[in-house]
Amino acid sequence: MTSLSGVFAASLTPLHEDLSPDVDRLVSHIARLVEGGCDGAVLFGTTGEAASFSTEERRRVLDQVLEAGIEPGRLIVGVGCAAVPDTVTLARHASESQVAATLMLPPFYYKEVSDDGLADAFGWVFEQLPAVKVLLYNFPRVAGVRISSELASRLMVDWPDHVVGVKDSSGDLDSLRAFLAAMPGAAVFAGTELLLVPGLEDGAAGTISAMANVNADRIRAAYETRSGMDGLRDARTLISAHPLIPALKAVVASRLEDPGWATVRPPFRPLPPQVGAVLAGELPTT
Amino acid sequence: MTSLSGVFAASLTPLHEDLSPDVDRLVSHIARLVEGGCDGAVLFGTTGEAASFSTEERRRVLDQVLEAGIEPGRLIVGVGCAAVPDTVTLARHASESQVAATLMLPPFYYKEVSDDGLADAFGWVFEQLPAVKVLLYNFPRVAGVRISSELASRLMVDWPDHVVGVKDSSGDLDSLRAFLAAMPGAAVFAGTELLLVPGLEDGAAGTISAMANVNADRIRAAYETRSGMDGLRDARTLISAHPLIPALKAVVASRLEDPGWATVRPPFRPLPPQVGAVLAGELPTT
Repeated sequence: MTSLSGVFAASLTPLHEDLSPDVDRLVSHIARLVEGGCDGAVLFGTTGEAASFSTEERRRVLDQVLEAGIEPGRLIVGVGCAAVPDTVTLARHASESQVAATLMLPPFYYKEVSDDGLADAFGWVFEQLPAVKVLLYNFPRVAGVRISSELASRLMVDWPDHVVGVKDSSGDLDSLRAFLAAMPGAAVFAGTELLLVPGLEDGAAGTISAMANVNADRIRAAYETRSGMDGLRDARTLISAHPLIPALKAVVASRLEDPGWATVRPPFRPLPPQVGAVLAGELPTT
Repeated sequence: MTSLSGVFAASLTPLHEDLSPDVDRLVSHIARLVEGGCDGAVLFGTTGEAASFSTEERRRVLDQVLEAGIEPGRLIVGVGCAAVPDTVTLARHASESQVAATLMLPPFYYKEVSDDGLADAFGWVFEQLPAVKVLLYNFPRVAGVRISSELASRLMVDWPDHVVGVKDSSGDLDSLRAFLAAMPGAAVFAGTELLLVPGLEDGAAGTISAMANVNADRIRAAYETRSGMDGLRDARTLISAHPLIPALKAVVASRLEDPGWATVRPPFRPLPPQVGAVLAGELPTT
């Protein structure tokens, strides 16, 4: 099993024209990510349009990816849903599939809920799954619900066999440091490559990065050399002029000369192919 | 079939001790709501903790409620999920169950999405379901995604056989009026009883109200007499000192002397019984 450190891509989920998941494209993509320098990939994180798929679709894709020969130890699987029963279903399946870890959002529909209530929710998942390894997933800007470092620490103390770390996608170095301070020994991932080097200096395990879908080699180099952040920032700035997921898919589509790769599920819309071509042209390559 | 107007309660979903839905308590509750002056009830709206249940649980509860003799025409059923395939599953089931209408949130995980993208998402649902009646559900404070009156108007024009109205839970009278202006002939419901009388004066169809779980008779009276808003505000203020769903359940538990009624799913936490008793004591009754 891959150790929980290094550079993981928050993998895109390519689609067929009818918007069903395209496992062939996905398997090739994951293989390219690993060849490009990633230690592994997250299936069905935010960048993977996870919330746009049913639990059944998510389980089937994981099964098919593994059947196609991807090593489960290379995969971290997003499992956090609005409803705890769905989170349990996905986490059980991911765990039985022997993946490296699960990545677990808190229940995200109801807002302004208490840390006590979130602790209850995670506890309700964990008590049903004695054997599941969990990275807590803090992404307040999108999920609308925050996992505080205090909550993460409490969950790690209360559920030491479950909580192995956190992915902090707050984008805030102070927040990342708070998790590092609150969770000694845990795998604390920066949810953006823009905090990779400062995070590593403070003890982070690495990064789980959306940009690694198109910029894995430079992120790998930054991980190895503890330098090169300017290039990572430039690449991110280029993409950030567009909605992130459609832009990343458009770049892959352009690079592979495979226009169907740009397909996204609503509520996203695909970028025009020419935009993808421009982005791909401007994005630094090794 | 009940016409789509009047006072609907956004029904609570009572639970067994093991957090599974308690259909017996729910059926009795809906019957009481109708006796108390509601034209019907919404199953699995926000107040019904909809997002905390799997699609399978939601379908089973609707089946069991109907088997217990509740008239489907009395029910509006919440069906909007983060994933379009789940929304399709629930809307198809509700429609086949002959309920009065469905209540449909936009996909709510991804934020800052465009109206075009949301129109794509609703269209993707509607094209799979030729026969489903839909109230669009605008609740930006909780869902984190807004249905603008422009989007609602566009969907009504593009999908005239689907979109029958809107529930506007913005809590803002100007927003309610914008929907009324943008959707001539549609059933526009105030998502709070606090806008019932001013809404009716401008042509609203009525209200779908969480407070109707505990205050149906007064809301009915306000609907009939176009007056009595002060009393509705007082009741709301009393409850608003606490998290809404736990407080409403605690009041019902106290009134029925049935402590188990106060049970909620995480991330909510039940209120202590004594708080429910105080609220129930202070809440005006007819």
